[in-house]
Amino acid sequence: MEKFFNPHSVAIFGSMKEGKTGFEIVRNIVEGGFKGKIYPVSRSGGQIFGLNIKKDFKNLDIDLAVIAIPSQFIPSLLENLGNKGVKSVIIISAGFSEVGNIEEEEKIKKIAKKYSIRIVGPNCAGIMNTECNLFASIEVRALKGRTAFITQSGSLGGAVLMMAEELGFGFSKFVSYGNRCDVDEADLIKYLQDDPQTKVIAVYIEGLKDGRKLLAQDKKALPKKPIIAIKAGKSEAGMRATSSHTGSLAGEDRIYDAAFKQTGILRVSDVGEMFDLSRGLIYYQKIEGNRIAIVTNSGGPAVMTTDKLEELGLVVPEPSPSLKNRLKSSLPPNISLRNPFDLLAYGSAENFAFVCEAIASEYNAIIVIFVPTAYMNSTKIAKALGKVKKRIKKPIFASFMAGRLVKKGIEELNSCGIPNYETGERCAKVIQKIVLQTSNLKGGRGA
Amino acid sequence: MEKFFNPHSVAIFGSMKEGKTGFEIVRNIVEGGFKGKIYPVSRSGGQIFGLNIKKDFKNLDIDLAVIAIPSQFIPSLLENLGNKGVKSVIIISAGFSEVGNIEEEEKIKKIAKKYSIRIVGPNCAGIMNTECNLFASIEVRALKGRTAFITQSGSLGGAVLMMAEELGFGFSKFVSYGNRCDVDEADLIKYLQDDPQTKVIAVYIEGLKDGRKLLAQDKKALPKKPIIAIKAGKSEAGMRATSSHTGSLAGEDRIYDAAFKQTGILRVSDVGEMFDLSRGLIYYQKIEGNRIAIVTNSGGPAVMTTDKLEELGLVVPEPSPSLKNRLKSSLPPNISLRNPFDLLAYGSAENFAFVCEAIASEYNAIIVIFVPTAYMNSTKIAKALGKVKKRIKKPIFASFMAGRLVKKGIEELNSCGIPNYETGERCAKVIQKIVLQTSNLKGGRGA
Repeated sequence: MEKFFNPHSVAIFGSMKEGKTGFEIVRNIVEGGFKGKIYPVSRSGGQIFGLNIKKDFKNLDIDLAVIAIPSQFIPSLLENLGNKGVKSVIIISAGFSEVGNIEEEEKIKKIAKKYSIRIVGPNCAGIMNTECNLFASIEVRALKGRTAFITQSGSLGGAVLMMAEELGFGFSKFVSYGNRCDVDEADLIKYLQDDPQTKVIAVYIEGLKDGRKLLAQDKKALPKKPIIAIKAGKSEAGMRATSSHTGSLAGEDRIYDAAFKQTGILRVSDVGEMFDLSRGLIYYQKIEGNRIAIVTNSGGPAVMTTDKLEELGLVVPEPSPSLKNRLKSSLPPNISLRNPFDLLAYGSAENFAFVCEAIASEYNAIIVIFVPTAYMNSTKIAKALGKVKKRIKKPIFASFMAGRLVKKGIEELNSCGIPNYETGERCAKVIQKIVLQTSNLKGGRGA
Repeated sequence: MEKFFNPHSVAIFGSMKEGKTGFEIVRNIVEGGFKGKIYPVSRSGGQIFGLNIKKDFKNLDIDLAVIAIPSQFIPSLLENLGNKGVKSVIIISAGFSEVGNIEEEEKIKKIAKKYSIRIVGPNCAGIMNTECNLFASIEVRALKGRTAFITQSGSLGGAVLMMAEELGFGFSKFVSYGNRCDVDEADLIKYLQDDPQTKVIAVYIEGLKDGRKLLAQDKKALPKKPIIAIKAGKSEAGMRATSSHTGSLAGEDRIYDAAFKQTGILRVSDVGEMFDLSRGLIYYQKIEGNRIAIVTNSGGPAVMTTDKLEELGLVVPEPSPSLKNRLKSSLPPNISLRNPFDLLAYGSAENFAFVCEAIASEYNAIIVIFVPTAYMNSTKIAKALGKVKKRIKKPIFASFMAGRLVKKGIEELNSCGIPNYETGERCAKVIQKIVLQTSNLKGGRGA
């Protein structure tokens, strides 16, 4: 597997005409700044991005082959690569089992077996490793980050990369594995659980070929790294629409759901939640209980967040009488000290920091909801929270609402390691999953 | 009520020092481009934004008074305004029932009654009417739009305005009514239902003082305009956090829920959904049934959208055999024609338009999910959809995913009157509510 992610040399097989898949992959690898050898291979010859296009690959030393030629020519190319001792091959080309051409896919599987070649694909969008600037894919190049994303659907992968770019969200690895004629989710998770760049593993699946293999693998992976899954094909119409509904682990979504719970995989319902949860897990891998505090200068959003937390099974309890008295003696009157702690117009950096620090011992996590006014400087509040976070050693989540008035504050939060979410409700969803993950790790699965 | 929204003259009472509430309101009114007379009133005298600050208001002709002086001075000011015949007053100042000062609030209510003054507030963020550029508020100035937003929580209102600004989402009217010592939700909805600038009414409430009045009012408003409600304070802890939990319609959220259903108010769970649904309702006030089609070039997102639609009680049925044959004869092979209609790599503008037009007669609404690739031009697809939409007279919703590659395409969609959402799941949620609204209007309430 290592050569898929850290090859010394990559050969790309495909048309090198502008706009064609082969051309776009070479462009991505070159522009992405890959430091190893890059061999574009095409009968056309000529040059591309300052590289000579090889007509012949006999004498090339190839760690990783990326194939984007028409499907009917792939078996003989694979034979040649096998004879050369190439062990890692990505097949981007479509035209296999996804269009009913099962025979052709069986053919390449047989050749791969004969030469011990590992294949990612066919019908996939490729592989990225941001650590070594390898972008063996036609998709938008991922930013550097700590989440590994593996996806069955290539076009969903592309959409995720574009959404992530807009959010400034980065990835350690990206793998679109398509028809998974060989390398599958379980193989990838096994590799990623020991990848030091990856803190969180996120998976998009429509159906599994070998469910038991994945679930057994995930049980091993779980103690090392949290796994987030988006599983599509819940409804009957949705299953009909997945290409892989035949031969999947089970026809019914609730069986997946139970299996995810049993193995401690965190299921999310859409891509937005996947981003939210990944960002949370990068900063906070544990939340040791379900007592949540909300500190705010805005009643409305705090009430809505309280509702969401309680709906999700978390609690928003009042502070102890002694804590309440301590707070009362140090804060202006009228401030609500019953949790949510509503600082009203007294939401200064000092007061936000004071309350967060004072209440930390009685809660497992704190959500700070801040709505800016003309009087309040979001950067100052972010800085103060960053300092408090270091002292209290409890997770702080933020929802600085919204727009240009808090833009700098949110940048400051990022640099202090405090994740910010558009709404407090989104903080609540993330916290609930991390609490669940923590309880899973302690052996309390299914909680 | 008219003078709250369309005054010929506005007097602002408060400190005119930079950064103070009075100053900020005058700034908003002046910079917002209000065409009527603007009278800043303060004992300080001097000038502000080129206007003379009046020390005395005896000889001023005032349609609307905006008050931001300390609460203890308000009763005598109100007496003076009453004597002058001023009938519309916004009290921005806090320090009344929300901090337990019920006596003071009763005092101003009595004075208002004596002089037939209508009061918005106290403890509120004010009023905006984008039609006449009236921004009698300290909050960020709203963009022009067709949604009226009324909110009990001023700071939530502020957050909504900032989020809206970032999204380019506009409002016809904005009202933060705070403690609603006089003008309440029912009064505002009554006014807004006849406001030609308003197509959709959105309400944020924590609790009601006179629930029956609102619900009776909404029953009248419903046939004219859809009403969207965010009701906070669902959970016990959430109710504890609302300032108005005493004296509300009922302690339990499920009673609100039933009342909303009975009157056809569309309840959403957060601000994001409120924006989504408002945008949908501005374009499409009716969807005549629950048969939804998905046309896409990307399997994964389409499957997830199918799941969401079915989860929400809508259906994603296959086309009739004759329609399927018609499509088959005109499209390349391998395209999935079972709904979702997956165009794969053949997702050209022509094919998207052809499929949408061909299937329109068998479905009540169409979701187009487009994931860009290097080959496909999102603007061309948006233009083609805009033309089809005019011909088929069925609602088309779009999810062009994502980022800079589709930015121009989304602008084109907007100008064609097709709402675009970040994900197909969000389209699904909007469609479900509009289907519900349509069935409500037909008398099938509670469906």
